[in-house]
Amino acid sequence: MPKLWNATIDAHRNAVREAVLDATAKLVAAHGLASVTMSQIAESSGIGRATLYKYYPDVESILQAWHERQVGAHLHQLRAVREQAGDTGRALVSVLEAYAHICHARHGGDVAAMLHQGPHMAHAHQHLRTLVADLIAEGVRTGDVRNDVPPVELAGFCLNALQAASNLTSKVALGRLVAVTLTGLRPPA
Amino acid sequence: MPKLWNATIDAHRNAVREAVLDATAKLVAAHGLASVTMSQIAESSGIGRATLYKYYPDVESILQAWHERQVGAHLHQLRAVREQAGDTGRALVSVLEAYAHICHARHGGDVAAMLHQGPHMAHAHQHLRTLVADLIAEGVRTGDVRNDVPPVELAGFCLNALQAASNLTSKVALGRLVAVTLTGLRPPA
Repeated sequence: MPKLWNATIDAHRNAVREAVLDATAKLVAAHGLASVTMSQIAESSGIGRATLYKYYPDVESILQAWHERQVGAHLHQLRAVREQAGDTGRALVSVLEAYAHICHARHGGDVAAMLHQGPHMAHAHQHLRTLVADLIAEGVRTGDVRNDVPPVELAGFCLNALQAASNLTSKVALGRLVAVTLTGLRPPA
Repeated sequence: MPKLWNATIDAHRNAVREAVLDATAKLVAAHGLASVTMSQIAESSGIGRATLYKYYPDVESILQAWHERQVGAHLHQLRAVREQAGDTGRALVSVLEAYAHICHARHGGDVAAMLHQGPHMAHAHQHLRTLVADLIAEGVRTGDVRNDVPPVELAGFCLNALQAASNLTSKVALGRLVAVTLTGLRPPA
């Protein structure tokens, strides 16, 4: 087959996949992760059930693909926040604030726990830890962050601490959580 | 049936349950959570497979019961640490150190994620948050802990931050994590 034909087919397949994931995202937002069905997804994405099954064998695999896209988008967002922040001190605060907001908005429950066990999460966590550890290492160099704990351990501390955001109900409380976490990074008096 | 007879039956049933959970704990320690089977559990607890099925329908329900016992034991341990520590400042440090060790020793993976979704975990987390929040509130009264963040939020911060212990490989690193977390609780300079 000519290359152009292959490219067109690829583009079509990607468009179908994107439509399926977009429809799933909307259904999840409306009804929660656990109650989404293949029929609903097919109907919402405007494709037949038979076609849907050619792309994904079950709801679980769609949720997995959707979650991978979500996690990828969050990483992309955090990298953009880091780039836009200018100096590294400000970047660290901005990235931690953005991560707290992501944790706050996250879905809970059984399905979320299942999705978070996927191998893509290990990679995403690794990237995130490296992103934060690099900013922390820069803070150690400028004297803004304590130098008595390895930056990668401080990154693990931050990212775990900020997961407390999922239990918070206000933006003010989110701000307090970020402030408390940043206090932990300060050089000992 | 006479009461004594009922009591004897109850004691026997409890003994069987304890034996099953003990055997499961040993198998989990040896082979990991995911690879334990009903046959192995029956053999290790010294009861028949048919008897085992009268007590528990499947491995999942045994793991759930085992995990509930584990979580209960950890809560009991943390309460004992709190009682033995004397003053509340020391108690807060001791409880957080003990919790970091519990998180460090924890099993990971799919099955652990599944077990942690059980309703017993929500209760256990609530008890734990209250235990730590009470110690923090006492620290606020004595001036050792910051008073610009509600104690229950600081407790959530601590308990999430200390879950970073599951990625640490040394006791020295565990000590650093507890120290960093405690820094977050200090009154702002």
